[in-house]
Amino acid sequence: MVGMRLIDIEDVRAAAKRIDGRHVRTPLLPCPWISDQLWLKPENLQPTGAFKIRGAVNAIGALPASTRSRGVVAYSSGNHGRAVAQAAHDQGVAAVVVMPDNTPDVKVDGVRALGAEVVLVPGGERVDSAVAIADERGLELIPPYDHPDIIAGQGTVGLEIAEDLPDVDTVLVPVSGGGLISGVAVAVKALCPDARVVGVEPELAADLAEGFAAGRRVTWDYSRTVRTVADGLRAPGASELTWAHIERFVDDVVTVGEDAILSAMARLATAARLVVEPSGAVAVAAARTRPELVSGRTVAVVSGGNVDPALLARHLGSSPG
Amino acid sequence: MVGMRLIDIEDVRAAAKRIDGRHVRTPLLPCPWISDQLWLKPENLQPTGAFKIRGAVNAIGALPASTRSRGVVAYSSGNHGRAVAQAAHDQGVAAVVVMPDNTPDVKVDGVRALGAEVVLVPGGERVDSAVAIADERGLELIPPYDHPDIIAGQGTVGLEIAEDLPDVDTVLVPVSGGGLISGVAVAVKALCPDARVVGVEPELAADLAEGFAAGRRVTWDYSRTVRTVADGLRAPGASELTWAHIERFVDDVVTVGEDAILSAMARLATAARLVVEPSGAVAVAAARTRPELVSGRTVAVVSGGNVDPALLARHLGSSPG
Repeated sequence: MVGMRLIDIEDVRAAAKRIDGRHVRTPLLPCPWISDQLWLKPENLQPTGAFKIRGAVNAIGALPASTRSRGVVAYSSGNHGRAVAQAAHDQGVAAVVVMPDNTPDVKVDGVRALGAEVVLVPGGERVDSAVAIADERGLELIPPYDHPDIIAGQGTVGLEIAEDLPDVDTVLVPVSGGGLISGVAVAVKALCPDARVVGVEPELAADLAEGFAAGRRVTWDYSRTVRTVADGLRAPGASELTWAHIERFVDDVVTVGEDAILSAMARLATAARLVVEPSGAVAVAAARTRPELVSGRTVAVVSGGNVDPALLARHLGSSPG
Repeated sequence: MVGMRLIDIEDVRAAAKRIDGRHVRTPLLPCPWISDQLWLKPENLQPTGAFKIRGAVNAIGALPASTRSRGVVAYSSGNHGRAVAQAAHDQGVAAVVVMPDNTPDVKVDGVRALGAEVVLVPGGERVDSAVAIADERGLELIPPYDHPDIIAGQGTVGLEIAEDLPDVDTVLVPVSGGGLISGVAVAVKALCPDARVVGVEPELAADLAEGFAAGRRVTWDYSRTVRTVADGLRAPGASELTWAHIERFVDDVVTVGEDAILSAMARLATAARLVVEPSGAVAVAAARTRPELVSGRTVAVVSGGNVDPALLARHLGSSPG
């Protein structure tokens, strides 16, 4: 796309200022049960349980006052919707969250409890519906990843990694739509130019791995990505904007199997005392199953923790501890 | 006890210097699902899964070189034993950990994996055995709480709370032998003189609550304290040294029931994405069941996360999520 502006480290620094005090400055946690060279960045500890709060706070914080006074709209049944509801609530901005009508009540109630209006529509209509609501009501649409302010907000994960471990060699990042890895890669490459940034996807939602190998943007239908247990990584793939960042700044994309994801989730609970959703565990799964990825000082981003308690219980019960 | 020297804030500051880089600087986590005025201090994220690493690193770090070269000995089947093994390993000091001969293999193996020698003895003999080993081999005994350097190390929890939330009003702290609350109270009272420090115990191991009400040190037999599911809080009670700190610096001691402890453990997993052992959940249980404790800006210390996975799974499965 000619003329598309990529974000840069100054955008990430501006985002860091905007989110300060509205997110948890997560520490790096040593992870000796995999490697003495591995640290975890536990974004499951964020308010609403995922890194998404960073992008949402930044995107809403960057809006001009006139837009803020009207409000925002987002489409998501998951972590982005919760994050937008939380960020809007904290900044006194009205929010509408469009969710599929089969979203579990507990997720709908969670978003409503943050003061957001929930609009339930058939799953296939949620994007169009959100766009229509934005137009009709004059609201600002806050997309889950396809926006420079979202990417810059998620990039603060990379900024903090570079601050805490300036000689980092490798950063492993879960990938879905590419907002997180785009921002992280911009920050890490600016501050630690020799470090590698590697994306991790489920084998069953490996659109970016396929695209990265082919050298062009590839998307997968939801009918394919829905197969993975990692329900936060079922986006169709990178947007043109995130692909442009990934193509330029990301070194590699690898995949992990479903068993490795669930096993990593269980071990994160027992060995790191972190409750992590399957999507949040893929980078750790990669570090466990592909030790060659942990070359030098390595950070695995643990992206979120909103797991079905019954699923976690089932796998904890079968874990040797 | 005439002439007993209490630790002071300078001891805690010295401990903070000694442990820097050998512990996780845990953040305060907002806890809006209980109160907008409540934060968690997640010590379950420390290496070895509990605050105990702070005291162990400080006590070993404070030893003169001649003592370090001989080594240390500790008695514990739980978090203190693991912490001493880890701290000794990290500082290149030999360690012996005396454990009851009914300690689960997984805990014995965990300590051995850190390079410590494990000596298994009948449960009732572990203290005498550790003292004898210290004498025979010229090792330094690192007790679980009855030592100024242990108390000063645990006090860094309070120092960090005061740094991160200087206008804190109340700090809720799990209590067993009193090392943690003694150190925390010294630090908090020095830096935030108006803040209240409140201990929390299981009703079934309420030796300190009884003693605090009576104005004198009280201990409970293991046959009584063993009844609580909070297996990290079954020490017989404060030592003379920790009692002297508690009497002077702690404002109140409250108790919580077993159901409240297990329910708090389950909610910490689903709402805070933290794996917490029952002992680590008592301060949160108190905040949930006695809202009057959360008066003003309040911090609940989450002291450890080494829970039996099957126990956690059972209570997760029964949690509404």
